[in-house]
Formats: sequence, structure tokens, C-alpha cells
Amino acid sequence: MSAVLQVCAAAKAAAPHLARASTRRKDAALEAIAAALDRGHDEILAANARDLDAAREDGLSPALQDRLTLTPERLHGIAGAVRDLVRLADPVGEVVRGSTLPNGLELRQVRVPLGVIAMVYEGRPNVTVDAAGLALKSGNACVLRGSSTAIHSNTALAGLVRGALESVDLPADLVCLVSDTDRGSVKELTRARGLVDLLIPRGGAGLIQAVVQDAQVPVVETGVGNCHVYVDVAADPAKARAIVVNAKAQRPSVCNAAETLLVHAGIAESFLPAVARDLRDAGVELVGDAQAQRLAGAEPAAPADWDTEFGDFKLAVRVVDGLDDAIAHIAAHGTMHTEAIVTEDRGAARRFCAEVDAAAVVVNASTRFTDGGEFGFGAEIGISTQKLHARGPMGLRELTTTKYVVEGDGQVRG
Amino acid sequence: MSAVLQVCAAAKAAAPHLARASTRRKDAALEAIAAALDRGHDEILAANARDLDAAREDGLSPALQDRLTLTPERLHGIAGAVRDLVRLADPVGEVVRGSTLPNGLELRQVRVPLGVIAMVYEGRPNVTVDAAGLALKSGNACVLRGSSTAIHSNTALAGLVRGALESVDLPADLVCLVSDTDRGSVKELTRARGLVDLLIPRGGAGLIQAVVQDAQVPVVETGVGNCHVYVDVAADPAKARAIVVNAKAQRPSVCNAAETLLVHAGIAESFLPAVARDLRDAGVELVGDAQAQRLAGAEPAAPADWDTEFGDFKLAVRVVDGLDDAIAHIAAHGTMHTEAIVTEDRGAARRFCAEVDAAAVVVNASTRFTDGGEFGFGAEIGISTQKLHARGPMGLRELTTTKYVVEGDGQVRG
Repeated sequence: MSAVLQVCAAAKAAAPHLARASTRRKDAALEAIAAALDRGHDEILAANARDLDAAREDGLSPALQDRLTLTPERLHGIAGAVRDLVRLADPVGEVVRGSTLPNGLELRQVRVPLGVIAMVYEGRPNVTVDAAGLALKSGNACVLRGSSTAIHSNTALAGLVRGALESVDLPADLVCLVSDTDRGSVKELTRARGLVDLLIPRGGAGLIQAVVQDAQVPVVETGVGNCHVYVDVAADPAKARAIVVNAKAQRPSVCNAAETLLVHAGIAESFLPAVARDLRDAGVELVGDAQAQRLAGAEPAAPADWDTEFGDFKLAVRVVDGLDDAIAHIAAHGTMHTEAIVTEDRGAARRFCAEVDAAAVVVNASTRFTDGGEFGFGAEIGISTQKLHARGPMGLRELTTTKYVVEGDGQVRG
Repeated sequence: MSAVLQVCAAAKAAAPHLARASTRRKDAALEAIAAALDRGHDEILAANARDLDAAREDGLSPALQDRLTLTPERLHGIAGAVRDLVRLADPVGEVVRGSTLPNGLELRQVRVPLGVIAMVYEGRPNVTVDAAGLALKSGNACVLRGSSTAIHSNTALAGLVRGALESVDLPADLVCLVSDTDRGSVKELTRARGLVDLLIPRGGAGLIQAVVQDAQVPVVETGVGNCHVYVDVAADPAKARAIVVNAKAQRPSVCNAAETLLVHAGIAESFLPAVARDLRDAGVELVGDAQAQRLAGAEPAAPADWDTEFGDFKLAVRVVDGLDDAIAHIAAHGTMHTEAIVTEDRGAARRFCAEVDAAAVVVNASTRFTDGGEFGFGAEIGISTQKLHARGPMGLRELTTTKYVVEGDGQVRG
């Protein structure tokens, strides 16, 4: 058995110890982890400095270096996020539905942990702790495979988490870090049938595509968001301008930021020049079709731009003939993440919500609200853009499955 | 684009017409299908006769010939099952949860169809109609790939279903039959990314394994059931005998029938001889370990027997040291379908339910109850033995996904 599969087997062996742990026990583990993080600043920051030295030597971009950087403030935030999990309801044990059947059998569908959750992610070391915390609170063991750029930081963080688990008499192997960060270790995780109950790739489209193509274990895809805002002819222009700027520029690097603006031809002449000024003031570069070039001063868009998650202060702009055209554009180019319409026309809003196929459809608000925290679900492990099992923000509940419990008194089937 | 992918694309193009159809419209389609089946007996039976002729020529076993056979009575049953779907609640449009967020956004999680469901199945032609009916009621288009032995029957049935859809002004391509029945067509379905939203293999372990290994589209595994009955030392022997015989012999060909009997050593001396008599009276052949050979007159079990879904009047019997031993045996050999304990000991029952990892855990009742109809969910498309998306009987609800609808009045994120 390879080293990666041995790690998965260790996590699988540890998982039952947590699956039956009480909420109180799991919360004690989370508190111990947060305390260990608070005490471990020196150790973590030293490890992070090694990663940052290597990143500078390798010429990593300043943006990626920033994502990799840990500071006392950021560590404080990471520990705080773990403590926040203590306050969330435990999904395990929830009776989803139940009834007494005509033959007297008592049937309950009960929420239980999945078992072992594997996660492949890039960049930010905080994911190591966030993912471990979410897995633990939902009763699951986890196998974490971060990127090579963060290996020292991740190793230090995982070590502290594992020590904290042991300090409350839980097996350290509930949280396992895969130390091998080459491509082969991802492939091994995708083939760990019987050892991994859910594999979550969290990263760029390339990583996700590679995982899905190889996967023989169940996968939930997260994070790719080519989100659109459609400004209808019946839009309130002031609301539309505020929503477009917020959806694009409030935090352009995240998956629920907008990448393309679609504007109804009937409002484009007045709306586009105005929103273009707002966007430029926010530092956003525009590319677009001929109309957008004329009305918004956009540079010509390349065909690939309509399918690109810029993740940056860049927006593609297109003028559409109407609602049908907007819906067709979204169906052709969207990633089924979050799609927004700005309109005061009730019929247009209803059609958009019914006909656009996405995890979230939004009327008269920013795409940026698709988020476990904003939706009131607490922390999330990612935004699922697939339809099976979980769609949209994946919180604690989405990290569980169910089991039917059937209790009888000797019933047999006739 | 290959013929199989063209079929998938046709289904995908048709799907939105159904996704937005009212329950009344879908129910009218189901009524039209049932009526078409009633009118089409001659056509269907003639097609079925061709399949049966070929089956006899190919030397298909009598059991498989029986599964392939349609009769007026069986066709009446198939049409009746379609009419039963009319009476079931439509899952589409159900608001799963919802709230008004602190910023005034109105959030609802609404149940919507998956889109296109592909199904690969063996043997019985009734699955063609059952699967189409379940897909339609849940708002999905479907792509059906049956076995070559049933191709004429399936073609006749699918033709009648498609005609019925057109008669109520719905696209025929909501129900597509893949006419190519070689292995390659299954592989193409597993690769139809973007065209197939859910692929359900329904058949033997070989088919399911082949699908899972190749799949790049989301899959739910169904149907493999290596189910156990554990008779505890605290079992009521009369209940235990009735449950064991029912679980094994009431209908041995189905996935929720028991394949292995585990008996606590403390009760084996008295229980095994008695249950062996009952089982022999029911026509059941026994294989087992040394104790079972001595106490139940079982033939020696081969190692593979503990992992075999006999699907027949054959049962493997083993004496275990106690509850831990039984749970360990089930963890090593079970397929996470249905596992039963017979005991009057509350502690043993609770531990069994908590520690056995299966779609259904049963106390003091037959394994045969794990079934959509018995659970009160109505018709089912199969029993999922995986943990993601659906676990246990897959009814209409499990053939849907959800979408978040967010309605605001200009909200942006701060």
C-alpha cells in the first residue's frame, strides 16, 4: 500500500472514534485546537517563513505570496474561526424524517458522518485548519493534501491540530496531512475507493478537471465561478450600478465575484456609460463586444473572455437583446455558481429564477452573497457547483450522510 | 459527436420543457403513458416474443427468460405502477428551507429537477417504463440503456412512451432509449460530461464496478446487497427464526434479501439446529463455518461465500463470539445496504445501530423492508448503497437537486 493510501487507511481507522463522539467532546477538541494555535504562533510563523523564503526564491507573484503569508493577526482569525464552529449546531444525530409504518415498524432517517473526507487545495494554509475544524465538528476524519508552496506551514498547523486531538484523548489520525505534494498524490486520493468517502478539490479549474477525470471516489466540485450580472431593461439604474460594482470589485479574487456584465439593449445607451465610470473608479478594466466598446470604452473582448474567471479587477461586458438572450448567454458560458438579474419587472425576475440553472439565482442583489456565512449556515468548506449531494455553500450538514434506523418487534414481510 | 452523445444532447435539449411543467401537466403525461401501454399490448408482446425467441436460441437460463417475459398481467402491473406515480407528491418546487437574512435578503432553497438522468440496467423490460415514469414525475429527462436481450421489448415500450409524450405536447426526447447495447455505449454514457447530470447503474456488481471506474459524470450506485442477520444471545428465538427465514427466503433474488446469518455462540447450540430446519423447509441450502456445519448441517463455506450476494436459496452461516465480532464481520464483508440484529437487549440494539455503517440498520425485523414502497416513499429507482446524495431507497426526492433563490432590493456586500 502506498504512503498516501496508508494515510487514508489511518484516517479510516480513526474515523469511528469520532463518529460516535458527543457534541461536547467534539467541541472540546475544537477548543483545544484553537488554544494550541494561540500557543503555537512562534512555531507556525517560523515554518511559514520557510515557505515564504522558498516562494520568493521561486519568484511567486506578490498576490500568491500574500495568500501564503501568515501573521499573528491572521492566526488569531484562524483560531477564531475554529471557536466559531463550537457555536454551530452539530448536524450529527438530526432526525431528518421519521414515521411509524402501517405494520408498526418505527422508521427514522438520521444524519451521520460521511467517514473520511479528503481535500485537495492550493495556496492558503488557513484551509488546513478550516477544513479540519469543519470535518471534526461534522464527525468526520479528514485527509488534507495542500500545495507544495505551503508544506512547512501546513505541516506545522496539522501537527498542532493532531497534538490537540491527542490532548483530549481523540486519535491524531482524525486529521492527516499528505506530505507528498506532487501530482501523483492527488491521483492516488482519487483512486482510494473504500478509504475516502468524499473528495473535495478546492482550487482552479485545472485541478478540479484533473480530479474529476481520475476520480473513482465520490467527488464534490467546488469553487469555479463564472458569474454574471444581467441588467434588465426594467432595472433601477442606481441599484444596478451599485450591484455591478459590488459584484465585481468588492473582492474580485473569490468565486462569487461577477466576471461578465450583460446589459439589455434598451437600457445600454444610458446605463453603460454611467456604470463604466463607476467601475473605472473602482479600478476595473473593461473588455466587451462592439456596443460595450462604443458605450463603455471597453477594449475588445477575446472569445475566451466570456468563459474566463478573471479573479481580478477585470470585467467582460456584452449588450444583449433581452432576457432570452441573457439566459442563453449564461447557459452557454456560466459555471452554474451564482447568476444575478437586476430588474423591477416581476415577470422577468420569475423567468430568470426559473430558467437559469445555477446553485444560486439572485434578484436585485450582489452575487457576493452566495456564501455559507452570509446565508446564515456558518462556516463552509466551499461552494458546490454540481447538482449531486450538495449545491451551493457546503456547510456542516453537507458533510454528512444519513442512515435509516428501523425498529420492530419481529415484523416480517408478507 | 457519437450516436450515444447525440441521444444525450437531445435529452438535454428537451429537459427544460419538462423542468418548468406543472405537476398537472406531468401527471397528464403519466396518464397518457399508462393508457398507451394499455392499448399497446399486441405490439409490446410481439416485440417481447422476438426477444424471448432469441433468448431461447442463446440458451438463456429459465430464470433470466422469466425476468424477460412480459404478459398481459405484467403489462397491467407496469401501467398501474405509472398510474401510482400520479398519486405521489411532486418533489419539484418544495421549499427545503428559507429565511430572511439580517440584511433583508429573502433566501429560499427550492427543489428542482436534476436535468438528464441516464440509467444502465439489465434484464427486466419493466425498468424502461418504471425509470421513465420516475424521471418524468421528478421533472427530468432520461436516457435509458437496457440490455441487448430486451432490446425489442424496450424499443416497443420506449416508442409507446415517446408517442404518449407527444400526445400531450411534450417532447418525445424526454425519454430516449440508447439502441446500441454493446459495452461501448455504457462507457460513452460515463463520459457524457455536461450532458448527463446523474448516471444510475442498476445491475450486478460487474456492471456497477465498470461504471464507477469509468465515470466522469456523477453516479449513484444501487443494488448490491450482501445483507446480514445477526442473532444475538439475547434474541427471542421465535422472532429470530421467523426473521431469518423471511430475510432469506421470501424473495431471494432481490438486493435486500439476507446472504449471511451470524449467530452468537451463546445461543448457537439451541438456535442453529432449529433455524436450520426452518430454512431447509423453505428450500434454503446452507454453507457455513465449522460450528454451522456441526449444528446446522451446513456444507463447508468457501472464503468467497462471505462476500457473495447469492441471490438464491442459499445462505452462509457463521457463529460469532459476540456483538463486536458480528459488527467486525459486517464491516469486513457487508456492502452497506441493510444489516439486521435480533435482540431483546436494548444496549446491544443501540450499539448495533450506531456502529454498523449501512444505508439501513434494522432491529427485530426482516431486512426485506428496505424498499421505497415499504418505507412509505412510493416507487423507487433503486437502493443507493453509497453515502453521497442519496442513501437507501431512491424515490422522487432523490432524483432532484436544489437551487437557492435570493431576492433583494438592491443589497450589496459590505
